[in-house]
Order: sequence, then C-alpha cells, then structure tokens
Amino acid sequence: MNVSILGTHTTKFGELWDVGPRALAREAMQNALKNSGIEAGQIEALFVGNMLSGILGNQENLGSFFANELLDGVAAFKNEAACASGGMAMHNAVNSLAAGKYKTVMVLGIEKMTDHGVTEVTDGLMAAGSDEERQAGITFPGLYALMAKVYLQMYGVTEEELSSIPVKNHFHGALNPKAQFPFAVTLEQVMSGARIADPLKLLDCSPITDGAAALVITTDPKLIKKFKKPVSVVASQVATDTLALNARASYVSINATLVAGEKAFKEAGVKKENIHVAELHDCFSIAEAIALEDLGFSKRGRAAKDVTEGKFRLDGEGLVVNTSGGLKAAGHPVGATGIKQINEVVMHLREESGKRQVKGAKMGLTHNVGGSGAIAAVHIFSN
Amino acid sequence: MNVSILGTHTTKFGELWDVGPRALAREAMQNALKNSGIEAGQIEALFVGNMLSGILGNQENLGSFFANELLDGVAAFKNEAACASGGMAMHNAVNSLAAGKYKTVMVLGIEKMTDHGVTEVTDGLMAAGSDEERQAGITFPGLYALMAKVYLQMYGVTEEELSSIPVKNHFHGALNPKAQFPFAVTLEQVMSGARIADPLKLLDCSPITDGAAALVITTDPKLIKKFKKPVSVVASQVATDTLALNARASYVSINATLVAGEKAFKEAGVKKENIHVAELHDCFSIAEAIALEDLGFSKRGRAAKDVTEGKFRLDGEGLVVNTSGGLKAAGHPVGATGIKQINEVVMHLREESGKRQVKGAKMGLTHNVGGSGAIAAVHIFSN
Repeated sequence: MNVSILGTHTTKFGELWDVGPRALAREAMQNALKNSGIEAGQIEALFVGNMLSGILGNQENLGSFFANELLDGVAAFKNEAACASGGMAMHNAVNSLAAGKYKTVMVLGIEKMTDHGVTEVTDGLMAAGSDEERQAGITFPGLYALMAKVYLQMYGVTEEELSSIPVKNHFHGALNPKAQFPFAVTLEQVMSGARIADPLKLLDCSPITDGAAALVITTDPKLIKKFKKPVSVVASQVATDTLALNARASYVSINATLVAGEKAFKEAGVKKENIHVAELHDCFSIAEAIALEDLGFSKRGRAAKDVTEGKFRLDGEGLVVNTSGGLKAAGHPVGATGIKQINEVVMHLREESGKRQVKGAKMGLTHNVGGSGAIAAVHIFSN
Repeated sequence: MNVSILGTHTTKFGELWDVGPRALAREAMQNALKNSGIEAGQIEALFVGNMLSGILGNQENLGSFFANELLDGVAAFKNEAACASGGMAMHNAVNSLAAGKYKTVMVLGIEKMTDHGVTEVTDGLMAAGSDEERQAGITFPGLYALMAKVYLQMYGVTEEELSSIPVKNHFHGALNPKAQFPFAVTLEQVMSGARIADPLKLLDCSPITDGAAALVITTDPKLIKKFKKPVSVVASQVATDTLALNARASYVSINATLVAGEKAFKEAGVKKENIHVAELHDCFSIAEAIALEDLGFSKRGRAAKDVTEGKFRLDGEGLVVNTSGGLKAAGHPVGATGIKQINEVVMHLREESGKRQVKGAKMGLTHNVGGSGAIAAVHIFSN
C-alpha cells in the first residue's frame, strides 16, 4: 500500500513567548492542511508527538486537547518516547494507514519549553534517562560527553574535528529562516565556547526550543493523484536499547540506531548510497558522528574527519546531512523534532527547499533518538 | 488478517506499596508471556499505556523503560490518552499488526498512583481536563456529578436507582480476588456514603489504585494454532470530543462513545445483541449508565432502572457488564484499566473466569474513556 505524505508545515523554531501550545499547534495544523489542499473533515485521526506537556504543563490527554483546535471527533492520542516522540507518532500513524484503519491522518509534533525555568526544563528532560544515572547527577550533556571522550580517544579524533559538525549544521541553518539560530559559526567560535561537559562546548549542544511541525499522510489514491508532489514513506522502523548508557555494550555506537537503520534499509529495499538527503539526530556533535557511522554513511571513527574534509555539506558532493541546521542550529523542541526532520526531507524531495535545496534529491532519511540512545526511529522517503 | 490475543495477565489491584513500577510491570509482562507459552525473544514491540509517569514520577521514555525489564531492543513507546491510555495502546498495537509491521507484540497498561499524596494525584488527574474547567476549580467527581444531576432530572431517575450500579459492580467484584475491593456493598451503604460531589456519594466513585495488566497479541498463524484458546480482535475504534464538558452538545451522552461504538459494531459486523460480556468505563456510577445507553444496551434514561431491575448482572439474563467489578470495585489504575478490561473479557471468552464466568460467552466488548468523555476506545472480541 502506498503511504504518501501530502502537505507539511513547520513553524518558526525559537523562544516563542507570544504563543501558547494551542496557538502553536493550530498554526502547524492549519498550514499543513492548507498545504495539502484538503479540508479538516477529511482527517480521520491525529497522532501527537510530545514529551513534556505533563511534567511542564500538567496537561495530558493531548490527543483530544489538540484535536479540539481543528479536528473535532477524530481518533487522537499522544505518543511519547522522549526526544523521539515525533518519530514514534509518525510510526504509529504509518502503521494505522497500512492497516487500513484510516485513510488520511495528521501527525503533529510539538513542544513548548521556554515558558518554564531552565532548571525545571532540565529536570524534565532527565525524565528520559535512567534512575541510577540521574541519581548519580549526570545530565544529558554529561552522558553524551562520556561518549565523546571515548570516541575521541578510541579513534584519535580531535576536538576540532568533532566541532566541524556544528559548523556544518550552522552553515545549513543560516539558509533556514525558521531556524532558532539562522547564522553561521566558525570553528574558532565553537572551540572557544564555554565547556558544558568536557569535551562538549556550548556550540556542540542543541538548545531549548519551542516549535511545532505537522504533516498530512494518506493512502487515498485520489488525494495522492490530485496532490502535485506526494512523497512516499518507504520505511518506518523503531528499536530500543537500555535507558542507562552505562548498561550498554558500546559508548561509540547506539544499538537502537543500528537495528532501526538496518530494518529500515531492508524494508525500503534501498542501500545507503541511494540516500541523497538526511536529517540525523544531532542533539550533541558526538550524536551526529555516531549516527553517521551507525547508519553506514561514514566508516567507524571517520565521521568527524569526513565532515572536516567537507562531506555531508550542501556545497560538497553526495549525501547532505541536516540541511535544516539540525537540532543544533534549527533548534530542538523535543516532540516536534522528529516531524520537523520529516518535513525538511519532504521539502527536498519536492524540490521546494529554496537556497538549501539538495539538487535532484530522490530519496531521504530521518533519524530520531530518545534519551542517550534508549530508542531510535528511522524513516525513509522517496519521491 | 486474524489478530488474536494469546496470553494475558492482570496483577492484583490495590495499594501496592511493596512494589515499584518496574517490578509491577515485570510481573504483568512475565506472566502474560508465560500464559502465552512463548519466549520474550518472540515479542517485536511493546505498547505501553500510561498517563501519570511524567507528572507523578518524572519518568518518561516509558517504552524503553519497561522494555528493558524483559524485551531488550524491541520497538517500544508510551501511548497516552488520560484514563483511556490502555485502550489507545491496544489500538496502536492492533494497527501495527494489521499493517504487517510486526507479527507478535505485547501491550502493557500500568499506573502507580498510591506512592504519592492524594492532592498530588488529584492534581495530576486534572491533567486530563480542560484549562477553563480546571481554573474554575471543578474536579472529575464534580464534572460527572453535573452529568448525574442532569440525568436524574431529565429522566426522573432516583439516586437509589443510579446507586444500583455500584451495588452490581461490587457484587461482581466480590468474585474477583484481584479486585481492590473484593466485597459486596448494599444499596443502603452506597446511599449513606459521604457526598463527594452531589449527587455522587463515596461508593459512586472509583478509587485511586496501583496495578498493571499485559497481554500478547499476534497475527502469526502458527502461534494462534498452537495456543489453546485464542481470542480474535474483531474491532478497535477510537473517537474524541471536546476536553471541556461545558462545550459539549449533551450532558447525558458521550459523543466519543457513540462514534467509537458505532464504528466498532460496524467494523465487527455484529449487533449489540451479540455481545455477551462487556467491561464499561464506570469511573462514576453515572458513567456506566451513560455508556450503557450510548452503546445501545439500554434505552435512553433506562440504564439505571434496568440495573435496578436486575439486568447486566451475573445472576440475571443476557449481557453481563463489569464482571471484574468495574473501575469501581476492581480499582482504577488509569493506564492499566483499558488492558484489564480486555483481559477480563478474554478470560470469559476462554471460559477461564471461575466463579464469575459468563456461561457460553462468545463475544465481548470493552469501553475505555479518557477525561469526562474527551476520548473513548471501543474494542470487540470473539472466541
């Protein structure tokens, strides 16, 4: 069955103090509908990806909460898997369509983080982690810093090489007006940043962000035919690993990514060489390096060196990674990230990405991670 | 495609202060596997139904959290829709199987509520409600009391008639050793109870409960054939309405139930007369009365009178409702309730319900509601 994405919309990402969650969701939902050229009444279900509404906003029942804005009466629920909540919402939406339960559904990823104090948000984000690591006082920057330490030592990679990753992503982000930080940064700026958790510096870390992203997805042949540039979902896979980093086999590979990636390439029947554009989960520089290797786009220990040499950039050759700016430059509203990634790839497959268009992109991949690698979703799309 | 339930397990419901969420989940998961006669390695995904882990426990990423107990590496995520979270987890699980994405998955409903102060839990539960009704200070007992007031006045029903519902459910609960309150109550006891929110008295209200329920569900013909008494899922439907009660068309009907129920009967291709056993969402006495009418089991305004006259009881004739004791007597660990309901119906369809067996039950229905009717899930099962 052909599961196709119609319209998409991603809101501006940033500190959006002038809108509440409802208005933010409505903006994404209304514009995704408009972009699809269909009416609200044609949507049968709403899959919401969100992590923190309960902890930060004391609001659950989010399916109904957001359906009320536009889609009264539809089946609707919240899908939660920490920073991979958007990817999970998409996975459940795709399954519901492939099952024939619904013909046309909407997926909404949303997170409103900056209305709350930084400590409150940081505490909330630790809800994605394991009890023992939290009790030991280690934060997510700390967990990813441990991975980075091992990675740098094991492969003889320098901090400068690792920091080429945010430089690349800010280079792309400068071309994305919706990015939270739509400007370039130099390697010197990254290297001279405050050390958040050694060896990770300020500009190795993704920010706290408000944002929403929505898309319409269908199996209805009439809607697909009528829509100018539908994009097919050719793989949707998810895998988990332990919540605790210390319980894992490796610090320089995320098994959930390995498993979900392998299954996704198998489901799509394509090879890594077929992917022209990808959005990978770069919550920290090291996360993108590991993802590039786990998905087979770089050899083990080579990802940071590859990026240093100019690979995965819009002005280079071959696969381009994180054209949106990634989580680093575009921002990371956790529940929205997985859907923003998909919308970004879809725009390339429709040749609608303007200045940051990957020319002739035929196939794209998104990779969304929760916690320090406890869960990963990999989706593949084709035009 | 035949989607069949294999093993099930529901833990003791009550104030379970000697187990934490992990141990409670493990008990349900391990026993559901054992009851299925399969190994953990045969499970491909875990669908967790839970509402309050974030608000009460500052723990999200529950898919991975609980998968780690038994099912390392599987796809796993949390499904949230307030008190209907269990029903939503089942809906997404059934869709994933019908889509052919997985062959065999586990569904886990769980809630650990009594480790927290009553005010904290009550505040947390209000996360299922609308902003304006919360700000006005109205609680869920208050919302359902408004429905009860209108219902009693509109149909000339007495408080005694309405209170026959918890009497029936405690009569059943006395036969369920896993119930939180496994004893009968008299009409006099219900009528003389403290008024929680007039006209609802203490014994019209479901309690705060710890508990978990798990089941294994598959499309694998070999597993279905090998399993002694598989139960088929013949319908899985969900609908929403406004979060706010004051925004709805009626106080004596829940539109989400009406819509999900109609769609479920249509999907199953059966009539209400075909249902022998049902678990309905009796968070308050009035909720069961309205559900009986919305699903067509009683005429409008007749449900409480029907129960008063002995209908829907194990010692009566025809459809039996809430043999587990319902939310009222069995308890209401919110995320677990939807799965407990399914497990209860499955036990009847397997003729394994001992003293409370509905003889010759061939077809069963479950009805799970979130908030004051913002969302409802209806499932139908056949042996």
